[in-house]
Amino acid sequence: MADTIVFTRGVPPTEAFPTDELAQCFDAALRADTAVVLQYGQQPGYPALRRQLAEEYGVAEKEVLIGNGSLQLQDLVAAYLVRPGATVLTEQPSYDRAIGTFRRRGAKTIGIPIEPDGIDIARLEAEVQRQVPAFLYLVPDFQNPAGATLSLEKRRAVVDLAVRYGFWVIEDVPYRKLRYQGEDLPLLRSIDPSRIITMSSFSKLLSPGIRVGFMLAPAELIAAVTRTGEDTYLSPVLPTQAAVAEYIRRGWLQPNIEKLKALYRPRWQAMVSATRQHLAGAQIFAPDGGFFVSVMLPEGANYAGLVARAKDIGLVLTPGQAFFADADQGELPDGERFVRLPFCAVTPAQIDEGVRRLASLL
Amino acid sequence: MADTIVFTRGVPPTEAFPTDELAQCFDAALRADTAVVLQYGQQPGYPALRRQLAEEYGVAEKEVLIGNGSLQLQDLVAAYLVRPGATVLTEQPSYDRAIGTFRRRGAKTIGIPIEPDGIDIARLEAEVQRQVPAFLYLVPDFQNPAGATLSLEKRRAVVDLAVRYGFWVIEDVPYRKLRYQGEDLPLLRSIDPSRIITMSSFSKLLSPGIRVGFMLAPAELIAAVTRTGEDTYLSPVLPTQAAVAEYIRRGWLQPNIEKLKALYRPRWQAMVSATRQHLAGAQIFAPDGGFFVSVMLPEGANYAGLVARAKDIGLVLTPGQAFFADADQGELPDGERFVRLPFCAVTPAQIDEGVRRLASLL
Repeated sequence: MADTIVFTRGVPPTEAFPTDELAQCFDAALRADTAVVLQYGQQPGYPALRRQLAEEYGVAEKEVLIGNGSLQLQDLVAAYLVRPGATVLTEQPSYDRAIGTFRRRGAKTIGIPIEPDGIDIARLEAEVQRQVPAFLYLVPDFQNPAGATLSLEKRRAVVDLAVRYGFWVIEDVPYRKLRYQGEDLPLLRSIDPSRIITMSSFSKLLSPGIRVGFMLAPAELIAAVTRTGEDTYLSPVLPTQAAVAEYIRRGWLQPNIEKLKALYRPRWQAMVSATRQHLAGAQIFAPDGGFFVSVMLPEGANYAGLVARAKDIGLVLTPGQAFFADADQGELPDGERFVRLPFCAVTPAQIDEGVRRLASLL
Repeated sequence: MADTIVFTRGVPPTEAFPTDELAQCFDAALRADTAVVLQYGQQPGYPALRRQLAEEYGVAEKEVLIGNGSLQLQDLVAAYLVRPGATVLTEQPSYDRAIGTFRRRGAKTIGIPIEPDGIDIARLEAEVQRQVPAFLYLVPDFQNPAGATLSLEKRRAVVDLAVRYGFWVIEDVPYRKLRYQGEDLPLLRSIDPSRIITMSSFSKLLSPGIRVGFMLAPAELIAAVTRTGEDTYLSPVLPTQAAVAEYIRRGWLQPNIEKLKALYRPRWQAMVSATRQHLAGAQIFAPDGGFFVSVMLPEGANYAGLVARAKDIGLVLTPGQAFFADADQGELPDGERFVRLPFCAVTPAQIDEGVRRLASLL
C-alpha cells in the first residue's frame, strides 16, 4: 500500500510553526514581565495582548477576553448563556467540536442548512420564530467544515434578525486572515456589534499548542464570561499569551501570515483542482481561503461505509456525520455523503493522490 | 496610615519565581520538541511530564492527566461525576473556589466540620449514610483554609468509608511538598488507590501563571475525564507543560523546593508566633507546612464587620464566609469568626504588624 494520506483534522503542518521566533518571544516575555506572567491573575487575559487586540478591532479593552483557546471560550459562553430548554442554532454542517460543547452545556443544537453563500436565511428566521435561541453559532469566513463564505447581504440579514429577535451571534473567524484570493467581507460586528460575539485565535496563525483564543463582545457579557472563566480555571495560562503579545509587538505577525499564505495557496489550488477534476457530479465547496474544501457526494454515489473503505486504501477521512446538528423543520441531510478535505498539512502531490483514491471508491 | 498589609489570597511572592531557569526551559522545550509542543493534541498532557509524574507516584502513565491548573481538573471531574441531585462533601471550611466550582456543576455541596486532626469522621459517615456523595473533596496536608493536617488514623478511616460506600475522594495536595517541620503522612492513594483521585500542581512549587496541574486516578476515570477535557478545551496548553518537564529533567525541582522552604519557613514561624502572641483566646490552626495559618476567633470577640474595619486600618482580609459550604446535620459555624492568614508573600515584620492590627480590632 502506498503512503497513507490524512484528510482528517485541520491542523497546520509542523513546518508552518515559527519556532525560533516564538522561543525568543517566550524568553523576552518571561524576563520582562515576570511578576505578571508567572503569577495568578489577569482573568480577562494578558494585558498587553488585550490592548493590542482592542486596538486592532477598534474596541475597548473591556470588550476583549483572552482564554485557553477559543473552544474553551465557546464552552464558557455556553455555560453562561444556555438556560434549561434553550436552543443553539448552527450552520448545517458545522464545527463538530462546537456542536458537542453546546450540547454538553444542555442546549438543543439545531442546524440550519448552509448554501454556497452561507446560512439559509429563510430557514433561520423560521427557526428563530419557533424559539428564540440562546445564540447562533456561525463560521462566516471559509466555513469549517463546508468552506462556504457568508455573503454581505446575508451578513446584514443575520445581524438584523439578531437585533430584532434579541439573540446573540457567535461569529467564529479563525481562518479569516488566511485568504488566498478575493477581498474580505465585513465582520458581522462591523455592521452592528450589539448582539455579536466575535471569536478567533492564534492557532491557525502561529501555533495551536499555545491555545491562545479570544473573544470580543459588549463589556457586560465579557465581564460575566470572565467570572465564569475564573470559577472554572482561576486564571488563564499567561506565558503563552505574553509570548503572542511580544510576537505582535515585534511586528512579526503579518509577515508570518504572508509566509503561511505562500505555503498554503498551492495546496488550496491543488485541492480545488483535484476535487473538480476527479469528483465529477459532487457539489464542491471551494472557498477563497482557510483550511478546508468540502464536497457533498452525489446521491447516487457509492458512499456507504466510505470512511472504513478509504482506510483500507490508505486514505484517512473524518466521518461526515459528526458535523451535523439536529435537523430544523427540514430533512436531515445524509452526513455520510459529506466529506471535509483539509489541505494545509498535505502537499499538492498528496492532495492529488488522495482525491484520486477517494474518487476510486465512489 | 502605615503601609497596607495583605492577608488575602495564597499567592507566592514574585521573588520565589525561578524566572531565568524557567525561561531556559521554555526555550529548550520549544526547540527540542516543536512538532508536539506547538501542535494540537496530547489531550492527557505533555508525554514527558506524564512519564515523570507516573514514575514519581508509582502509577502507570494512563493513570495521569495533566491540565490547565488543578481547578480546571476539579471542574472537569465534577462535570463528569456530578449527576442531578448529587451531593459533594467537603471539609468545613474548605477551598472557596472548589466549593464554587462544584456548585456550578449542579452539586449540593455539604461541609463536614474539620478538627485539628482533620475532618470529623463520625459526621462524615453520618452524611454518607444519608446520601452517598459523588465525591468527597479533601485537602489532607496543611489544609486550605484551615491549616489542619489529616491524621494517619483518619486517612485510613476516610479510605475505608470510600471503599465501603463506593464514592470517590479527591485528595488535593498542592502544599504537600512545602513542609517546614515534621514527617510526611502517607497519601490516601498509598493506603488504597481504588477510590482516590490525587490532585496537585506546580503553582506553589514553580509558578501559578503557568497553570500546570495534574491528577492521578484509575485509568478508566482518567480516560473519561480526558474526553471531557477534549470536549471543553480541545487540547491542554503545551509549552508550559513541556517547560515543567524540562525543569524536572534538569534536576532543578527539588533544589527549588528547598529554596522555597528556606524563604517561607521564617514567615511561617512569624505567623505562628504572632497569632499565639496577639490573638489570645482564638482557636489557632498552626500547620507544619503550606501557605496558611488560620484562626477561629472567640465567640465573644468583636468580629462583626471585621473585613471592612480591617481595611480602614490598612489590613486586607478575605471574608471568612466564602470558605463555608452548606451545613451538614449540625449547625453552620459563623464564617465571620474565621480568618485565613496566608504568610508566604509577606515578610516577618509585616506579619507581626498585620496580626497586631487584627488584634486591635477585636
